[in-house]
Amino acid sequence: MAIDRVDAYIDAHRADFVEQLKALIRIPSVSAQPDHDADTRRAAEFIRDDLEAMGLAAELIETKGHPIVFARNAPRPGRPTVLIYGHYDVQPPEPLEPWVSPPFEPTERDGNLYARGATDDKGQMFTHLKAAEAWLKGAGELPLNVKFLIEGEEEVGGANLEQFVAENKTKLACDYAVISDTSQFAPGMPAITYGLKGLAYFEVLVQGARTDLHSGTFGGTVANPCNALAVILASLKGPDGKIQLPGFYDPVKPLEDWERAEFAKLPFSEAEFQASLGVSSLEGESGYTTLERKWARPTCDVNGIFGGYQGPGPKTVLPCKAGAKLSFRLVPGQDPTTVAEQFRAHLKAVCPPGVTYELIVHHGAPAVLVGVDSPGVRAAVRAVEAGFGKAPVFIREGGSIPVVGLLKDQLGVDTLLLGWGQNDDNLHGPNEKFSLADFQKGIKASAHLFEELVKEGDRSESAVP
Amino acid sequence: MAIDRVDAYIDAHRADFVEQLKALIRIPSVSAQPDHDADTRRAAEFIRDDLEAMGLAAELIETKGHPIVFARNAPRPGRPTVLIYGHYDVQPPEPLEPWVSPPFEPTERDGNLYARGATDDKGQMFTHLKAAEAWLKGAGELPLNVKFLIEGEEEVGGANLEQFVAENKTKLACDYAVISDTSQFAPGMPAITYGLKGLAYFEVLVQGARTDLHSGTFGGTVANPCNALAVILASLKGPDGKIQLPGFYDPVKPLEDWERAEFAKLPFSEAEFQASLGVSSLEGESGYTTLERKWARPTCDVNGIFGGYQGPGPKTVLPCKAGAKLSFRLVPGQDPTTVAEQFRAHLKAVCPPGVTYELIVHHGAPAVLVGVDSPGVRAAVRAVEAGFGKAPVFIREGGSIPVVGLLKDQLGVDTLLLGWGQNDDNLHGPNEKFSLADFQKGIKASAHLFEELVKEGDRSESAVP
Repeated sequence: MAIDRVDAYIDAHRADFVEQLKALIRIPSVSAQPDHDADTRRAAEFIRDDLEAMGLAAELIETKGHPIVFARNAPRPGRPTVLIYGHYDVQPPEPLEPWVSPPFEPTERDGNLYARGATDDKGQMFTHLKAAEAWLKGAGELPLNVKFLIEGEEEVGGANLEQFVAENKTKLACDYAVISDTSQFAPGMPAITYGLKGLAYFEVLVQGARTDLHSGTFGGTVANPCNALAVILASLKGPDGKIQLPGFYDPVKPLEDWERAEFAKLPFSEAEFQASLGVSSLEGESGYTTLERKWARPTCDVNGIFGGYQGPGPKTVLPCKAGAKLSFRLVPGQDPTTVAEQFRAHLKAVCPPGVTYELIVHHGAPAVLVGVDSPGVRAAVRAVEAGFGKAPVFIREGGSIPVVGLLKDQLGVDTLLLGWGQNDDNLHGPNEKFSLADFQKGIKASAHLFEELVKEGDRSESAVP
Repeated sequence: MAIDRVDAYIDAHRADFVEQLKALIRIPSVSAQPDHDADTRRAAEFIRDDLEAMGLAAELIETKGHPIVFARNAPRPGRPTVLIYGHYDVQPPEPLEPWVSPPFEPTERDGNLYARGATDDKGQMFTHLKAAEAWLKGAGELPLNVKFLIEGEEEVGGANLEQFVAENKTKLACDYAVISDTSQFAPGMPAITYGLKGLAYFEVLVQGARTDLHSGTFGGTVANPCNALAVILASLKGPDGKIQLPGFYDPVKPLEDWERAEFAKLPFSEAEFQASLGVSSLEGESGYTTLERKWARPTCDVNGIFGGYQGPGPKTVLPCKAGAKLSFRLVPGQDPTTVAEQFRAHLKAVCPPGVTYELIVHHGAPAVLVGVDSPGVRAAVRAVEAGFGKAPVFIREGGSIPVVGLLKDQLGVDTLLLGWGQNDDNLHGPNEKFSLADFQKGIKASAHLFEELVKEGDRSESAVP
């Protein structure tokens, strides 16, 4: 059987695959930091070269920002087409101090690979490249039509992918989309993620006096933008954890009874979760369990706050500026544009007198819910079982993957969210990691997915130009 | 007359004095920043060498921190003794971007000298050195016993001066203390400052989870230290500008009727003041005029705030730490130690659940009020009139000069606060400046003060060991 040769190829190249992943991770492709623009391009070229080397037609597509990598095999009619999306850019590694090993020097410890991008998304995305390679080199060909769409602006919410997808619907046409950029439910408990939160991300800049002032000579005469910012940020949530924007909860689709029941059945220990985070208590919106809040209720977090003197020792300054980055995680029913309007209205209502503010609206995305009863999900269940030796559970996720909504809107396709990561992988934080065993299992699950999607039958001729 | 020769010397050396001041200012003696420790010592040596060169017995006194410069002339019984205090250290120049010329490259523009330390306190302190030089070189000797006490930890509230003064009461014994580290009321309106605010400076560090987390995956499950910090800081003041610490106002000595009347008579334009600061409105505690709030009512300002991601672009992080530097300006009656207790109690009451906090208590000082009817003040009025051609007005000041309380407590002496600066000198902020005309006038006023103090008669033998 072809799949046996594919499995054998994967087993035989285990060490090679890890070395290749390390080489990719060593490229500090921090899309948010212009200093790293050349590195970011280098990561794109690495992906293109890898796809080309395995025999696919691969290209680097220029955008106004970081390039997109697109690759495909020679399409054959009568076969289903799968589009695999991933991203080669990573979050900034800062703060650097807490990293045990340098963020861009991938280091193996306890069966994990530690580095920025290890799980988000270089490691997970790379499983599909290696699955394709295993088919092409191990079995001679891919069993279905495969397209790769690997972008470099996921972490900065660049509008360039959106434009590219909108302008290239035929090129990208497919029956299934697959993304591995989420987590398993727990070690040894693979999962299919059927819901994602959306995102509305803002920056608020508050200005007081024209320049910094002496806090003694001028204190008590002008509003302090740091104090004013605190008033603004403190007004975002009530003591019950409810977000205070006017109308914020109105369009929220409530959790269904079956979901609350399924979540409650999962082996989730609040005590262990709390201990793993090192907090004295779990906190959030009242009236919901931790898993419900984590996966399916909207949230609001300040992502960064800055103003005045941050150096060593005291400085008696009355600052002229302060600012915060903050974001709302949205659930099905909510729309980031509406939330921006609500936030604007809230700001106007709560901003103290004597300061002015500027609102910067960063990228947003609505939440996503995928139907769990479909040919793609059925194939994915079997593939995950083949790769991980265990049937997946169905979960939702608090993170946002805006491209899922984009692919639905533009290509009319649902995305299979097959996460190979773990909840404690610390993506976006220091000491990000990815299990090397899960890297291997993910490659196998991806390879089997190609076969299982074929078993679900031909889907649509439209996918083959 | 000796004083005429002194005045002539000052006039003849005007340009020299400016060049010498520039040389002192070029030394970046930022006491708060350990990187500048060698520079800070260099500034002390500069002062010592200058005092020695004019014929005084000068020494560098080591402390656990930055050295103290002490100098004196040969004491003669039957003469009053004046102790001149100043500081050679400066505030950090950051943020650097708004500076028109580099902070440590003194630059003349429009009759002002622009640089960090130009007015606070290098320029003002230096007037007394040059006045002493004018007596010594112009008239052959000083008319009274003079002691210089110039320290290097004023901007960091170091405890070393406190210890030195407590352990050297005889060495420092005097009839009058003089400090020039305040401002005139307005250009051409010299002032004697009879009241200073005190200071209680804190840093609050808030900790949430053990590490930074992904705001999607973990949002809604743990308290966010940035949000919690905002709640804490927003709780410090009510919408009426009243500080909310329990018992904060209880010991406050109210403004006397004559003070409110005198302040109201001063030519102070709220509209011009507001325009000079570039704010849309003046803000502060309700029930008081701007001058009253500025000079004689307690205030609370956040001096710096930090947490999470501050770099370019968005980052969807749930930070594990946040912090703020904040300070209260105190008025007569209040005690910084009591305020620290009140702040601790307030923190305990308002800190949201799910985070922990650490309170760092930086330096504090009580407020100061000096009696306006005394021989020293009478002499100072005549000296200022001689130097500036106009009698001084009596004002208070929102800044803190902890050493004034220290000299009162340890030496039993009131301090003459003779400020040569202007309110818009931007001390502690970017583009700090000092009027070169006022520099010259201050030197003359100081020289005349020596003579006028002698006219007030012999004060005490205790000052002459």
